[in-house]
Amino acid sequence: MTDSTITSTPAIVPVAAEGDSAAPVVGPTGDAPQQPSGMPVHKYLPFDEQIRVELPDRTWPTRRITRAPRWCAVDLRDGNQALIDPMNSERKLRMFELLVQMGYKEIEVGFPSASKTDFDFVRALIEEDRIPDDVAIQVLTQCREHLIERTYEAIAGAKRAVVHLYNSTSVVQRDVVFRADEDTVLDIAVQGALLCRKYEETVPDTAVTYQYSPESYTGTELEYALRVCNAVSEVFKPTPQDKMIINLPATVEMATPNVYADSIEWMHRNLDRRDSIVLSLHPHNDRGTGVAAAELGYLAGADRIEGCLFGNGERTGNVDLVTLGLNLFSQGVDPQIDFSDLNEVRRTVEHCNQMPVPERSPYGGDLVFTAFSGSHQDAINKGLERMEADAVKAGRSVDDIVWRVPYLPVDPKDLGRSYEAVIRVNSQSGKGGMAYLLRTEHGLELPRRLQIEFSAIVQDKTDADGGEVSPATLWDVFTDEYLPTAIEERRWGHYSFRDVRQESTGDGADRITVSLVVDGQEYQVTGIGNGPLDGFVKALGERKIDVRILDYAEHALAEGDDSLAAAYVECEIGDRIFWGVGIDGSITRASLEAITSALNREYRARH
Amino acid sequence: MTDSTITSTPAIVPVAAEGDSAAPVVGPTGDAPQQPSGMPVHKYLPFDEQIRVELPDRTWPTRRITRAPRWCAVDLRDGNQALIDPMNSERKLRMFELLVQMGYKEIEVGFPSASKTDFDFVRALIEEDRIPDDVAIQVLTQCREHLIERTYEAIAGAKRAVVHLYNSTSVVQRDVVFRADEDTVLDIAVQGALLCRKYEETVPDTAVTYQYSPESYTGTELEYALRVCNAVSEVFKPTPQDKMIINLPATVEMATPNVYADSIEWMHRNLDRRDSIVLSLHPHNDRGTGVAAAELGYLAGADRIEGCLFGNGERTGNVDLVTLGLNLFSQGVDPQIDFSDLNEVRRTVEHCNQMPVPERSPYGGDLVFTAFSGSHQDAINKGLERMEADAVKAGRSVDDIVWRVPYLPVDPKDLGRSYEAVIRVNSQSGKGGMAYLLRTEHGLELPRRLQIEFSAIVQDKTDADGGEVSPATLWDVFTDEYLPTAIEERRWGHYSFRDVRQESTGDGADRITVSLVVDGQEYQVTGIGNGPLDGFVKALGERKIDVRILDYAEHALAEGDDSLAAAYVECEIGDRIFWGVGIDGSITRASLEAITSALNREYRARH
Repeated sequence: MTDSTITSTPAIVPVAAEGDSAAPVVGPTGDAPQQPSGMPVHKYLPFDEQIRVELPDRTWPTRRITRAPRWCAVDLRDGNQALIDPMNSERKLRMFELLVQMGYKEIEVGFPSASKTDFDFVRALIEEDRIPDDVAIQVLTQCREHLIERTYEAIAGAKRAVVHLYNSTSVVQRDVVFRADEDTVLDIAVQGALLCRKYEETVPDTAVTYQYSPESYTGTELEYALRVCNAVSEVFKPTPQDKMIINLPATVEMATPNVYADSIEWMHRNLDRRDSIVLSLHPHNDRGTGVAAAELGYLAGADRIEGCLFGNGERTGNVDLVTLGLNLFSQGVDPQIDFSDLNEVRRTVEHCNQMPVPERSPYGGDLVFTAFSGSHQDAINKGLERMEADAVKAGRSVDDIVWRVPYLPVDPKDLGRSYEAVIRVNSQSGKGGMAYLLRTEHGLELPRRLQIEFSAIVQDKTDADGGEVSPATLWDVFTDEYLPTAIEERRWGHYSFRDVRQESTGDGADRITVSLVVDGQEYQVTGIGNGPLDGFVKALGERKIDVRILDYAEHALAEGDDSLAAAYVECEIGDRIFWGVGIDGSITRASLEAITSALNREYRARH
Repeated sequence: MTDSTITSTPAIVPVAAEGDSAAPVVGPTGDAPQQPSGMPVHKYLPFDEQIRVELPDRTWPTRRITRAPRWCAVDLRDGNQALIDPMNSERKLRMFELLVQMGYKEIEVGFPSASKTDFDFVRALIEEDRIPDDVAIQVLTQCREHLIERTYEAIAGAKRAVVHLYNSTSVVQRDVVFRADEDTVLDIAVQGALLCRKYEETVPDTAVTYQYSPESYTGTELEYALRVCNAVSEVFKPTPQDKMIINLPATVEMATPNVYADSIEWMHRNLDRRDSIVLSLHPHNDRGTGVAAAELGYLAGADRIEGCLFGNGERTGNVDLVTLGLNLFSQGVDPQIDFSDLNEVRRTVEHCNQMPVPERSPYGGDLVFTAFSGSHQDAINKGLERMEADAVKAGRSVDDIVWRVPYLPVDPKDLGRSYEAVIRVNSQSGKGGMAYLLRTEHGLELPRRLQIEFSAIVQDKTDADGGEVSPATLWDVFTDEYLPTAIEERRWGHYSFRDVRQESTGDGADRITVSLVVDGQEYQVTGIGNGPLDGFVKALGERKIDVRILDYAEHALAEGDDSLAAAYVECEIGDRIFWGVGIDGSITRASLEAITSALNREYRARH
């Protein structure tokens, strides 16, 4: 970019030996037939013309990971601040308790000096004694005195706390935001560290660990980042017994992940007091390579990784702690975090963040243990059969021999999930999916997980016949399975209901009274809850029927004033999960029918 | 894993010099406080105990990317086969036309010998002359004779085609699925190649390029993969003028992406006839590092990358072509693919795949150009202002100077998108989001993009006052903006409607007649469409009102029989996008009100 018109050219810091200056250029030898796109590429500088990272004698590519890093979960801070609908105190507490339960020992709980909500939440955790002794809460603060003072007010009384101090150090931020030179920006950090030491005296009962982040590290010249980090550690004077954390965030991911790893190895080699420093990574995912940046950076000498469950966080998100943890697991390395009920983890995260986990999210997404292709299904079946045979031969349980099944990198059972084979109902017609047929022929929009569940049922019920399944057969299977009362001459079901009475006083506590029929016997049951579903579940409790609602969806069956509504409810009954479906002119009755449908299916499965 | 009980120990292939055998172990020096998880890690073998990949003199980490690879889009094959609801011919054609329009020159269109739908689609493309001269269609086939014969029947008459031959070569597949030794599996590939040459004679008018994939390459010993690839190229005898493609799929992603890159560089160095080979990558995303694997593999010597838009594909998906392309763009490298209307690309992909693009998907997700944090917003504003000032100083347009704005890796305008700052309405209460207030106080579930749009409106209307926004003010702003008729004394709006008459004959063509009021004047307009929305849009056309519906959502406002419905419609009017909202007892009227709301907002914005 010889023709750049930016007013202050970004500094170029030579990191390693000169001479090897220009990296070899990569372009295809394959005669790419594409044409120029016309997009304004002239607006963008390659990363290596902004920040020079050179480390020809890097060692990280030959290393391998054999132990889990020290984890820090930042869902309640970096994750929460990036939500359209930030967590209220109930959702915050559920997230905190989930993280504790999974085994995280360092949890960033907020930015208490910047937000009264965060402050109150930290105080509540401490005053209600909700922090286990071996868990450290972490709080973020900028370097200004009133913020630091307030931060210590927030953590007073906590047993262990990480005070996380940051300021932004990148070329662009210095130039555009702070309009300050290198020394001035360095001094912000040093003064912040000194203030921390001063206010630390106000919390004598708290074991404080310090963490410093040169925010926007990836846009900072390496030698300058090093200088700032060393200046801060000179204030804190950590020791091998009482370490401090230096956290190097990819606030914005700016290059391929090997460049981040090179920069981490360079910092790892050059930091003062390395034996007294916990070197920490905080990757974001702007280029879709946050997981790779974390893994390669860890190979490069880091000790610790900050991230969020399922990659929540600013813009494209923080690095995903679920993927990182289970990537270790799949290599026989204990993540030291419990992912054995991943569906429950996902549901809690979806509730707290009010955002869905994508279908293809590694390990946790709805579709990642689903095989569609016949050849994949065949190979998986052969793999599972061989595992059984090998186990018998070895006189062991199948859970004690090495997992090796094509197309399934881990055993879904280890995560509390299951493998599903989805069959093509009608591949010849080009309308292969059951979902398609149910939508176009019957107006039903099945939720994804119900689609998967139903697919297995279709497969069970039609395997005998072989060949394809007609739309009529499909509908027959669907109604028999989910709509026990739909067909007059084939009614079934242990449970049903007649009249429903609802009273809503507007205070969030609705009373619902239902004439419930169990095995032909009618009972009046009443429940008070947050809406009719919740009330009905409470009312069922009166008859010792224990249901937990996991997911719920409802839609009009067709557009028009007088249309029917279809309701879908995912229920946990005992320790199994059943979907139920209800169709009715009243959306309330449709919902209750859906719960009843799930109850009936569970009862039938048990008997 | 000395205690492994698998019956056939995976072969260990030493790739590079011996001596450097055991890779250094990485574990934290940071005194990780975590405890063992209790998960069954003993079931998993580390990758390096399954397949040995060693290349101490690797060169890829010092290289950088300066040109786009040769792309191949496999949305219609690998993507399509992983959909619950596979594409019908209408959706297939839209996907094909999108890919062509964006600039892809190699498009895998199906597996015609395995699926009649795919066969018919390929025939239709050829017979209806829909393939531009510079685009090659690619078709997948296994190595069996009747499948190969059928494949050539499918492509007959095409100008250019890539015949993509594969068989599975991994240790596990040989052992479990094929129960065959190395030579037998190699011979499957060679026989397949010979059959291709035989049947090629049946398509004299088609320029055929060959592609061979050792499927499950990442689970195959490197030396064996090399032997198979060389045996196949020995049959095809490619030349520098008439190359063949060797494609090395990470059918399942099994290790960190640097290991894939090492394996690619090793193959790149060792393949016979390298100057006659186009070396191709096909990464999947099981470990969340598909993008990194593609980028590092490209640095390692590959020429070509196969993937899908927004990472559709089996399980966790194929590598995401959007992220790969725009990662190049952000470095000043022309992707040779046009992403300048990324919203439209996304909408088409969502329509074709019937799956949403996740909110945090790089470049394309709803939230990736949204800033929530005040300090981020401040820095972005300062960056944008500086860009303007620098442009003035240089006497240039702001689009002709280098982009450097904190937190925004690319200018959203270059992708036809916009930057949005979401303000916190009421941060003190812990109920920070407008979405939260509208949901809890008014029962409205705003779609994500409408939330973002409304946030900007709140900011505009309340900036003057400063400070926080009360729920009452928020509702006032909302109704004034979206519900022009909601408040008796403040009605506004150029457009409204009175009576609505619908006739549905059940053949998918509904007729709707509306008494439309434009500026006080009433007109009867009629439209026939696929449902009332489509019909209303057609009817509006009678009055030269041009609207395109981009997204639509509707829900009951509260649970209960007599509740109101809320409808949200995203409309393109002229070249701008407006959301409209309607609330009514009738779901039909609510939808039409939503369209009218968008029309009124557009009219007000223009006048």
